[in-house]
Amino acid sequence: MADTPSAKRQKSSKDVPYELIYWRGLPGRGEHVRLLLEEAGAEYTDTAHIEDGVKTVLAQIDDKNLGDELNPPPLAPPILKHGDLVISQTPNILLYLGPRLGLAPKITDDDDGIYRVNALALTALDGLSNEAHDTHHPKEESKRRAKDYTANRLPKFFGYFERVLKSKASGEGPWLYGGSLTYADLVLFQCVDGLKFAFPNALKRLEGSSDYKGLFELYEAVKERPRIKEYLASGRRQKYSEGIYRHYPELDEE
Amino acid sequence: MADTPSAKRQKSSKDVPYELIYWRGLPGRGEHVRLLLEEAGAEYTDTAHIEDGVKTVLAQIDDKNLGDELNPPPLAPPILKHGDLVISQTPNILLYLGPRLGLAPKITDDDDGIYRVNALALTALDGLSNEAHDTHHPKEESKRRAKDYTANRLPKFFGYFERVLKSKASGEGPWLYGGSLTYADLVLFQCVDGLKFAFPNALKRLEGSSDYKGLFELYEAVKERPRIKEYLASGRRQKYSEGIYRHYPELDEE
Repeated sequence: MADTPSAKRQKSSKDVPYELIYWRGLPGRGEHVRLLLEEAGAEYTDTAHIEDGVKTVLAQIDDKNLGDELNPPPLAPPILKHGDLVISQTPNILLYLGPRLGLAPKITDDDDGIYRVNALALTALDGLSNEAHDTHHPKEESKRRAKDYTANRLPKFFGYFERVLKSKASGEGPWLYGGSLTYADLVLFQCVDGLKFAFPNALKRLEGSSDYKGLFELYEAVKERPRIKEYLASGRRQKYSEGIYRHYPELDEE
Repeated sequence: MADTPSAKRQKSSKDVPYELIYWRGLPGRGEHVRLLLEEAGAEYTDTAHIEDGVKTVLAQIDDKNLGDELNPPPLAPPILKHGDLVISQTPNILLYLGPRLGLAPKITDDDDGIYRVNALALTALDGLSNEAHDTHHPKEESKRRAKDYTANRLPKFFGYFERVLKSKASGEGPWLYGGSLTYADLVLFQCVDGLKFAFPNALKRLEGSSDYKGLFELYEAVKERPRIKEYLASGRRQKYSEGIYRHYPELDEE
């Protein structure tokens, strides 16, 4: 295939645990990856729970790291290692794990489902994680941004997902796509959970409105998944602190 | 497959032109999609060049749009229609098109290349498109943001891609991954091109430094691809204006 990127094939076994490389002490973007692994009951290691795990993070993002024969160096965590694969970027890691863990349609020529799930995950990460992060970063403008975020942006994104839940493509049950739990549901769950921590008053108002009934039902349905429930109660779940979702009472609604 | 999302298979022919649904009058995020289609010489329609094309955009993002049996509604353009598939989110559209247009490794069980290309594309879009957009949006804080962006963030991201170009995984030639042009190269080209428009002085300084030689060589190499060259000179290429990349002399370096 002239003009097609040469496929670097690798035959090494993928029958090894996943390795999550992420900061310790905050859920952060790594949490989206953890929720997939936990929901699937997959075997994985997590630098957040390994002594000196931070050294692994720092070695990966070191300015001197040039990656290896197969893998370009990553810019920032979360990073996933699986066999000889090393990849970064949250939505990219979710895309890799989703079909493998039964949390998204397999990628085949006659099933485009993965691209629909991926779009939903990207939209949630954009609006409910990246934009939430912008409300406290940098500080001097955070008050105005937080106000606009809870008053205008959140209802916009929540309304969008409510609409997705009403679409025929969402199928039966509380899920976003195809009548089954996918990783897009887990992403949305984590976003709402972080927002509940960061803006408890605003979220109480939105939860009380009938406009986002489906969204909060999805949130509760994920929370009640047996493995997720067990995970959330375990020591493996990091506490919110200085990450994407921060709680400053003065930035919340009154 | 209990517990696996039900695959909604579709057998309808994909032997139809691609349909890009995007605003007219600015390159914007839609430009990343156009560059793939142009480089591959693919047949496509573009609402930016169709009379009343904006109506198609508005119908897709209407609050009342509930998608269809297969497709959830999109939140925002760019949107790609191909046969009965309707998807949104720039990196997701690129992921769909890349392997089909010979601009990324095919997605197979024994080739993980697509996840490496996708990570590079996501990193470029994050740092060089989304963050650039933040410098003028909203206005009152733009000066401080733009200064930090050109002084600190741009060298950080440029330095990262320079490092990727030095990694073994980048292979021979000016490209980011695997020794061949991939869509990650086209994304990076468009980001640098937009930044040259928005911050000409800052970009001249960075181009003059030997630190980012590989990056600017990649930029020139994409620009000289025969189909890209023809496209850039054509009326199909939208002019920069009020999109992601805006030129305010007071926000550039002196």
